[in-house]
Amino acid sequence: MKFGRVLLEGREKNAFFEGDKAIVDGRKIAPGKFSFLPPCIPQKIVCLGKNYSEHARELKSYKMIADSPDKPTIFLKPPSAMVGSRQPIVWPEDKDVERVDYEGEMAVVIREKAKNVSVEDAHKYVAGYTCFNDVTARNVQKADVQWTRAKSYDSFAPIGPWITDASEFNPLDARVTSMVNGETKQDSNTSKMTFNAFEIVAWVSRIMTLFPGDVIATGTPEGVGPLKRGDEVEVEIEGIGILKNKLE
Amino acid sequence: MKFGRVLLEGREKNAFFEGDKAIVDGRKIAPGKFSFLPPCIPQKIVCLGKNYSEHARELKSYKMIADSPDKPTIFLKPPSAMVGSRQPIVWPEDKDVERVDYEGEMAVVIREKAKNVSVEDAHKYVAGYTCFNDVTARNVQKADVQWTRAKSYDSFAPIGPWITDASEFNPLDARVTSMVNGETKQDSNTSKMTFNAFEIVAWVSRIMTLFPGDVIATGTPEGVGPLKRGDEVEVEIEGIGILKNKLE
Repeated sequence: MKFGRVLLEGREKNAFFEGDKAIVDGRKIAPGKFSFLPPCIPQKIVCLGKNYSEHARELKSYKMIADSPDKPTIFLKPPSAMVGSRQPIVWPEDKDVERVDYEGEMAVVIREKAKNVSVEDAHKYVAGYTCFNDVTARNVQKADVQWTRAKSYDSFAPIGPWITDASEFNPLDARVTSMVNGETKQDSNTSKMTFNAFEIVAWVSRIMTLFPGDVIATGTPEGVGPLKRGDEVEVEIEGIGILKNKLE
Repeated sequence: MKFGRVLLEGREKNAFFEGDKAIVDGRKIAPGKFSFLPPCIPQKIVCLGKNYSEHARELKSYKMIADSPDKPTIFLKPPSAMVGSRQPIVWPEDKDVERVDYEGEMAVVIREKAKNVSVEDAHKYVAGYTCFNDVTARNVQKADVQWTRAKSYDSFAPIGPWITDASEFNPLDARVTSMVNGETKQDSNTSKMTFNAFEIVAWVSRIMTLFPGDVIATGTPEGVGPLKRGDEVEVEIEGIGILKNKLE
């Protein structure tokens, strides 16, 4: 089952998805007749840094502090940064921004309130999985030390196109690829994560109570790089689908 | 006008405040008959680091990267960390936490959607002001580099007791004090901020769209320090009131 949210005839609606069609209030809606919204409404978006060792090495080569950690490194993105699939990523007004990078990731969406859950029980608190692009102003990230500004600009959290139900998806072994203008830039598998999806949910739930709709982005593999205006970036996760956004 | 939210007879209610009483649905409620909730429901809590130069020097003495910046340093706290006045700050389950500090601050609460607003217009987007305690696990902050974990534990964002309407408060000249068990630990004035409230609202609105109820905590002055279990911390802002919380 794939579910999410769409804009249809000016209204925000919950939807199911079959092939390229949205099912809204029992009606089948053809592509082009609806727009994708972010598939959930989180209280918070928790992100992991450096959760694939090859990407940690890559960041290190940019002279950023980035040894592969013995615990997950977490940061937050604001819900105001979210956009759905096929919505534009907008180059920020902030004159400090010189380089905007894609970072393709698998994201976990929380089903119910979770606090101090065990790794073994974590799956019970997951509604499903979606594609996420942790868009980052790389030069600002490097300059600021704290990553918040670089990762919080409006439209810097593309997510979707929908959520694949947890019962139909194995987050421990899923291919994650990113393409820019059709060319493959990232090609990895969630099996290569340092901390897997369930370890992450358990870890984060020990720090902060998770609520239904909350998003945890699980980190990006190696192969990140800059986008230029007009580039189209696709984050594809096997078993979920393709999150597609153009940088304006 | 002072307004906020309370828990009354098991229900969450909007309230006005007069003296020590809450006014709910036209009824005057005596203290002890209601509990304070966080006075607003934000989509995000944006915090400033190092916005008083004396505190920046203080952090530097702890060997943390903390020169007074030429732009505001921002970070986010999750809404799940909020508690109202007189609610406990709870020592985290996370075994890494060895030291929990208070940080008294003035917070701005947003009135309406704000994007790319000017410093001159910023006041139009402010609903009012409240007291905030940016509770921080200092040793975790130092170890993690990214501040998120150290500042995101449940109950690490005490806020309130209410919002003082923007029309009745001058955020450019307000005394901010913090007391622990009645002893003054921080005593400064918002006039000593590196970036004032309106510069901050304008700056943050250039990065991310602000929504009604969003909170911007404007940074803490010098005098931060550790709490031990059982300590009661009060953050008082002249013209607002006292935010009081005990560490359990």
